[in-house]
Formats: sequence, C-alpha cells, structure tokens
Amino acid sequence: MFHFDDDYTYRMPAHFGGVKGGDLHDLQYDDVTSIAISYLTDEEQLAQYVPDAFEIVEPSLNIEYQKCCGIHWMGGGEYTLLALMTPVRHLSSGTVGAYALVVWENKTAPILGGREETGIPKIFADIPDYHLLDGHASAHASHEGRAFLELDLQLDHELSAEDVAARNSAPRINQMGWRHIPNIGRPGAAVSHATLYPVDVTYLSGGTGTATATWTPMDSLQNPMQYHIIAALAGLPVVEYRPGVLAKMVTHLRGDLARELV
Amino acid sequence: MFHFDDDYTYRMPAHFGGVKGGDLHDLQYDDVTSIAISYLTDEEQLAQYVPDAFEIVEPSLNIEYQKCCGIHWMGGGEYTLLALMTPVRHLSSGTVGAYALVVWENKTAPILGGREETGIPKIFADIPDYHLLDGHASAHASHEGRAFLELDLQLDHELSAEDVAARNSAPRINQMGWRHIPNIGRPGAAVSHATLYPVDVTYLSGGTGTATATWTPMDSLQNPMQYHIIAALAGLPVVEYRPGVLAKMVTHLRGDLARELV
Amino acid sequence: MFHFDDDYTYRMPAHFGGVKGGDLHDLQYDDVTSIAISYLTDEEQLAQYVPDAFEIVEPSLNIEYQKCCGIHWMGGGEYTLLALMTPVRHLSSGTVGAYALVVWENKTAPILGGREETGIPKIFADIPDYHLLDGHASAHASHEGRAFLELDLQLDHELSAEDVAARNSAPRINQMGWRHIPNIGRPGAAVSHATLYPVDVTYLSGGTGTATATWTPMDSLQNPMQYHIIAALAGLPVVEYRPGVLAKMVTHLRGDLARELV
Amino acid sequence: MFHFDDDYTYRMPAHFGGVKGGDLHDLQYDDVTSIAISYLTDEEQLAQYVPDAFEIVEPSLNIEYQKCCGIHWMGGGEYTLLALMTPVRHLSSGTVGAYALVVWENKTAPILGGREETGIPKIFADIPDYHLLDGHASAHASHEGRAFLELDLQLDHELSAEDVAARNSAPRINQMGWRHIPNIGRPGAAVSHATLYPVDVTYLSGGTGTATATWTPMDSLQNPMQYHIIAALAGLPVVEYRPGVLAKMVTHLRGDLARELV
Repeated sequence: MFHFDDDYTYRMPAHFGGVKGGDLHDLQYDDVTSIAISYLTDEEQLAQYVPDAFEIVEPSLNIEYQKCCGIHWMGGGEYTLLALMTPVRHLSSGTVGAYALVVWENKTAPILGGREETGIPKIFADIPDYHLLDGHASAHASHEGRAFLELDLQLDHELSAEDVAARNSAPRINQMGWRHIPNIGRPGAAVSHATLYPVDVTYLSGGTGTATATWTPMDSLQNPMQYHIIAALAGLPVVEYRPGVLAKMVTHLRGDLARELV
Repeated sequence: MFHFDDDYTYRMPAHFGGVKGGDLHDLQYDDVTSIAISYLTDEEQLAQYVPDAFEIVEPSLNIEYQKCCGIHWMGGGEYTLLALMTPVRHLSSGTVGAYALVVWENKTAPILGGREETGIPKIFADIPDYHLLDGHASAHASHEGRAFLELDLQLDHELSAEDVAARNSAPRINQMGWRHIPNIGRPGAAVSHATLYPVDVTYLSGGTGTATATWTPMDSLQNPMQYHIIAALAGLPVVEYRPGVLAKMVTHLRGDLARELV
Repeated sequence: MFHFDDDYTYRMPAHFGGVKGGDLHDLQYDDVTSIAISYLTDEEQLAQYVPDAFEIVEPSLNIEYQKCCGIHWMGGGEYTLLALMTPVRHLSSGTVGAYALVVWENKTAPILGGREETGIPKIFADIPDYHLLDGHASAHASHEGRAFLELDLQLDHELSAEDVAARNSAPRINQMGWRHIPNIGRPGAAVSHATLYPVDVTYLSGGTGTATATWTPMDSLQNPMQYHIIAALAGLPVVEYRPGVLAKMVTHLRGDLARELV
Repeated sequence: MFHFDDDYTYRMPAHFGGVKGGDLHDLQYDDVTSIAISYLTDEEQLAQYVPDAFEIVEPSLNIEYQKCCGIHWMGGGEYTLLALMTPVRHLSSGTVGAYALVVWENKTAPILGGREETGIPKIFADIPDYHLLDGHASAHASHEGRAFLELDLQLDHELSAEDVAARNSAPRINQMGWRHIPNIGRPGAAVSHATLYPVDVTYLSGGTGTATATWTPMDSLQNPMQYHIIAALAGLPVVEYRPGVLAKMVTHLRGDLARELV
C-alpha cells in the first residue's frame, strides 16, 4: 500500500508519489508580455478586503495582465493571468510588498499549485491573447462568454534603455497571499496563514500611456463562485489612474523563497 | 480591515467573505449521462496507489465518465468529469466505498472545491461531449490536444424497469479521498487525512454492453503535472473487463455528509 | 496529377478526392434540445435584410438555439447553433418557408458545408451549453469572451401528447438562404442565387413559457466581421413577444432535397 | 427589400450589406512566429494531390506553423495556422509559387474568407501556442482532443543579419489554390478555378536546426471531414528532411493582388 513519507512533498493525488525535500523552485518564464494598469481608490473600501494582519501602504488597485510564454515547468508552454494586487506591509514580519486580492488564470495547473502551495488566491477565467494595433493594447477576462473586466492602454511613450535599467534596479516583488483551507463539515480552518511568494522581474522593453479598466458585474447565476469578488472590485472607485505600462519581461517566480509569514 | 470569523467557512480568496456555519450542502445534478467501464487488474500493482489507511476490497479499476447538466450550484450549468475509483475499506472507521485515485474535470471551479474542501484529487483535462451513434458510445480525455484515455462501449442490452429499480435500491456511493496540503518550503504536510464524500445516484434509464478503455501515455514535456499519473494507471494490466454501462441519472453530492475519516 | 471529374462532387480541398454523384444527404440528428424565441418586429426595418427575390410573410424574428447531439455525419458527435429566421415567400418559385438571416454555430465543419453547399449564412460564435434550473432555460452566444445575444425562457406549461402530435403534423420547415460567392479582385459575384434546404423536425417533448432575447452590440475592433450583423439585428424593435418553446426533438436536414431556387 | 448591387462585393450573409468595389486588401500581420519544416517526398504520390493545371517544381512538402499576432483586420488580434504547401508552376499562366494542399487554422473567420474569396483550402483544427524551451520548439494540431500532426525543431544555428537580409531579398511567395464551389443536388461545380494569393514576408530574426514532422492518422468517426486528407499527407514518404526554421516575421497577405489564374 502507499505510505506517506514525512521527508517528501506531495500534491493531490498524493498516492502517485512525491519528491524528496521541498518542491518549490525558482520558476523561470522566458517570454512574458505584461499590461499593467493602476489606479488610486478609496482606502476604507479597499481595507475591507485586506486581512488585518496587513496594513495598506497605498490605496491603489494594481491590475496586471501577463501572457506568459516559455514557461520552464510547462515544457516551454504558456498561460495567461490577470493579477489584482494592492501595496501592503505585513505587520508582524514587517514585509512590504503586494497583497494578492485575486489572480485569474486561464489554466488549472498553475491555479492549483498557487492556491495550495503558496496561498495565492487564483481562480479561473477565460483570458484571450491581448490585442495590439497602432499603439493601442487591450485585454479582457470573461467567464463562460461574458466579459467582466476590460483593460485598455493607449501607448504614447517608449521606455528608454535608462527607463528599463531603472525598473530593473529593484526587480523583486514581494507577492503576499493568504492560504486558507477550511474544515470539513464545520466552520473554521484547517490551515489559515499569510504567505510570501516573491517574484523577480527583468524588463526587456516597453512603453507607457493612458490606461483604463472597465468592470462589468455578473449575477450569481452567471458566475456563482466569483460574482461577489467581481462586485467587490468593481465597487472600488477610481480616484485617479496612473500611467499604464506595456512591457516585455522575463520573470522568476521564487518558489525557493516562498514561506509562511508569521 | 478584513477579519476572519471562526464561525464562518471561507474559500480562497477568503477576504471577500465567507458564510456562517459550514458550507457543504447536498448538491443536486438534475441530468447526468454516465459511461461506466470497469476491469479487474493486478492487486499488488494497484495497491501502490492506495494509502495504507485503506485495504482494497476488490482489485478493479472503475472508470466513470459523467456529462453533468442541470447543476444547481452552477445555475443549471454543466461540466464533465472522468473519475477513476477502486473499491476499498477504510481500516480505522470501517467505511466501505470507492477510493478516488484521480478525477479529471473540464472546469476549474468544481476542481478547487473538490480538492480543498473534500480531498477528492481532481485535476484538469479537456473532456468533449460523448458521442453516441447506433448503440456505440465513446468518450475521451485529452491534455492540450493529445488524448490519453479513450472509452468505448458497444451497447447490447437495455436496462429494464426492474434493472433500474435494482440499481436504485442501494443508491449511496461512499466516495473516499485523501486531502493533502503540503508545508511551504519544507517537506511534510499542513493537512493530510482521509475523507468521506458520499454521492447518491438515482438511475433513470440505461443499457449495458461490451466496453474497453485505452490509455496513451504522455511524456513529461507534454503533460508535466500529470504524466506520472497517466503512466501509473496505464500500467495497470487489464485482467478482465466487466460489462460497461451507459445510463441517465440524477446525482446528489452529499456535501452535507462529507467529513474527515479518522 | 489530380483531375476533376464532372460526375463527382468535391469540397475544398478538392484535390484529395470527391464522391461520385451528388453529396447532399438526409442528415439525421438524433438528440436535439431547442430553445425557440420569437417576436414581431417592424416590417420595413426587417425588409432591409431580406433580398427582393422574397416577400415577407410575417414580420417576425424567429431565434432558435439548438444543442444538436447524436449527429450521424459527425460519428454521433455534437455542435450548437443559433439560427435567426424570418417567414418569407420566394416570389418566382412560390416556396413558403423561413429565410435564414444568419446562423451562428460553434464548430467550423458544418459552417463550411452550410455556406458553400446550401447558401445558409453560417458564421462562428462560442455558444456554451444551455442552462436549465427550476424551469428557467437560458443560452447565449459570444465572440472572444463578449456575449452579444442572451436568451431567457421561463417555462409555465408542459406540452401534452396532443400538443406534440399537433406540432409533428407539419414537420417540414422550408429553410431558405442565399448562396453568394464573390468575384476575386473585382465587384460582383461568381455565384449568387436563392437556395432551399428543407429540415424535418420531430418533437419528442417540451414546454412553453415567457421568453426574452437581449442583444448587446459590439464594435468593429471587438468583432470586425460580425458587428454590422449584430447591430442590424439588435436594431430591430421588439413589437411583441410570442411564447417561447423548450423542446427535445429529432431533426433531419434534408440535404437530399436541397436545391437552387430559380 | 435588400437589392444586390453589381458594383459591390458581399460576403454571406450578404443581405446585411457589402462594400463598393473589391474587398480584398493588403492585410498586415505585425507579429508572426513561424516554424517551417520541409521534406522531400515521392513525386508520383504527391502528384495525386496537385491539379493537372499545375506541374510540380520540386517534390517537397513544406509545412509552416504560424502564430499570427497584431493582425490589422482583426483589431490587433491573433490566430494560428498550419499551412501545407508544395512548389509548383501554373501551366497556362506560368506562375511559379507554392500550391496550398491544405491550411489548418484555429479560427473560423479567416477560414471563410480564405476559401470563398481566394480559394485557399482552409479547414479547422485546434492549434495551441508553440512551446519553446532551451532551443527546442514544438507545435501540433489536433481535432477534438486527438493530435494528428506534431512538429519538432531543435535549433542549432542563429540567423545572422546577413541571413535575414538574404531571406528578405525575395519576400514574395506566390501562394496558389483552387477555388471550388459545388453545384447543389447534382455533381459538378458552380465555380472551379486556380487562384493566386501572394504573400510578402519580412524576416526579423530566427534560427535553423533539425526538424521532424510526425503524422498520426485518424479514422472516419474521429474526424469525418478530414481523415482522408490526413491519411493522404501522412502517406507521403519522408525522403529527406531539410533544415527547419524558427523565425519572427511581419507578413502582408496581398489580397490586393489576388486573382483567378487562367
């Protein structure tokens, strides 16, 4: 019969075998196209969605679309994500970074690992490839044929070599999440704690411009597991847009540095 | 700031709110088409993949395709699954039922709940609608355009009203799994225990016939997260096929009865 | 070298071979679920979209969603369509039937045959499976994640055996289209004529209720080949809804009776 | 009522309006990634699939995967194609170029235009994004979850600026096809003629290496409309592989130069 070994790390289904030691590595993504859109919002409303183990560093909603290609752990394959982050400080550890409010992804495999192994709250959406024409970039996410978030970026400035170098001088993003696994059949949690999952980003080229994000709420019959998330984010007012960024980059998901935050 | 309430049940992302009390209910699926194929295999080989908290009741591999429609929690929507089960007894509790070796599903939302909330080892596959022509039913599962399991069933006998009634006299299937959530950055588990997730099945109509299941192994570049699972299952010898079944049914996933097995 | 034979019928790519004689047959679809919604509209507006070889018999827009399964020519497989028809009479032949304004389908193979071989103006859309819960049926069509047509039907009456028999007393629908193949590099047509493609429908069961259809126009960047079609149909006013119908049926596409209308 | 205008060009559904003059333009694709694999084959076998209006210039099968992005007519969107060409001379016009045996594409809109307006024999396949890892590029095409063609390219040489310039010195490819629209209800053709549809290619960068193409035939139940095409191409022997090419390029589909070949 199958026997669990305490020196191994397993994923469900665990009984087909695990690996000795830890199983989180530096995951390189060779070819990433990013569309980043950010706006200031109302801090009080935003605070409803950030656990009280954190404090908000700046009340902004940072939306980043990434078409990720050349993914080493996928045999050079690809998936696309849409991450919604806000800048925070983890109080007890003092870690400053980006708290993941939600991350939509269009493949299941990275969703499972992200949730169960690092507490990043990934859920599924259809996210077609971005469009790019005459300096206008757009992307959107949908659930079963109904778009709930549209991103638009009109480029007006190309990043210089100096701009790129400046962005690469501080490549580390301290991505943080909250891993929560419920009890079965009764309230409360089997696991519930803050997590750290750093990402290193190397910009290759890019441009900036005027950006907008447009939310379309869904109802509970259309998107039963996500409509409350979309409603919450759609309800955050846009106080002021920042310049949007379109960039080509290489990313390293530093699974080797992931840990619980206590 | 968001504060976790011990009387609530949450799913990731948890900070958008949970529900008071437990969150697992009787989930009704109104309109399910099932193709069930079963074969005896080698007990020693099979035992490698069943945790030693169980004993094998019969060394058979039970493969069930289900196109599930009229799903209440999805607003009447649908998904398709391919479950691989084997009959077991949980030693300490004495529970007899079907151990879930792996369940492929073609939507992410039920995969997340199944894994995190009830320990059913669900993973993603593309599973097109079954074909049915002149009494020949077929279905298959694939990963990014490469089929790894093909099911074929040639019907030769229609279930009589008595056959249907006989099947409905014992509608409960004690589906069991193993919920395993790893530690972050070191081996071992944050959560690791057997689970029970009963399902009640009401047959409406159906037929039986001659069935086959054909596996095509994949390599680690083609399906990095699943190739070892497919290889393990493909390696189990077919000792003897049982009659296959095509059936229309109503199912109730008894989340209200789900619990840890100790 | 490949040589065309005048006694054969070919499809592109033709050089892999054709079939002797004609190639249009009675195509049986064993298991069709239909949601039919109809409304009276403005005759003058509607007339803009019906060629002057026809006259309008009734200014109604008939929208029919069909999930078609057990399709013989697809080896028992399936596709889904959304047909928009209006009742007409072909003037020169006197044929009375349903003129196909547009038919969206979610697979390419039936689109190609429908267009090139019978002049039915099929184009692509994503059309997920219908939802059905507590007597409420819904369906929709989308292009790259943006829905442009939503159908809703609240059932309040089940078809009796007499209702079903009455519907089956006149099973033939004279579906008509217009086959148009342009010249290359200059205006005008290589082929342009009205077509007849009858369908025989056998109702098995069903119900009726209150129905609505909701259009969401798209812009030319979102749906460059179809936005003008959606805008035209969305612009037709709803004068009065008829009862909607949900039905199970068997259909026969009478390719064997298809012909040019002169 | 709708009236056709001889000075206009229409696509089905034609009754929603056409455009004055011709409707074929220079279509720019800004960002194309190409994997090109070629092998010599048996001339006699190949000749079965080339109409006798042509002669074969070289008995080679040229397979080209293209992930096409930044497509102007799609609002900056994308699709992916897999073209199978062979070098020919059109006898009566003397045009030398590449005869399109078949082109698989993963979106319907370009398939319709390609077939009806220029005679390129496009049909549908699922074609996921290519994988690229450590100089190994791969791509494949599948029909409903079953792959029928796999391409692999191991790069060993980067194209120099001189190589790129040399390739760009003759950017025009005279793509040729055969437009064939059958009669309805009787054998023979309503339209049947050779076509010319030039493409201009500008290489940006790339590399060469060792390439293979692997066919997996399908049966008539699995792929009823295409199995004979796949069988024909899979049956062409590989006499000798040429070096494969991975390249980034800009393409111009010269619809403005498309015409019938007489």
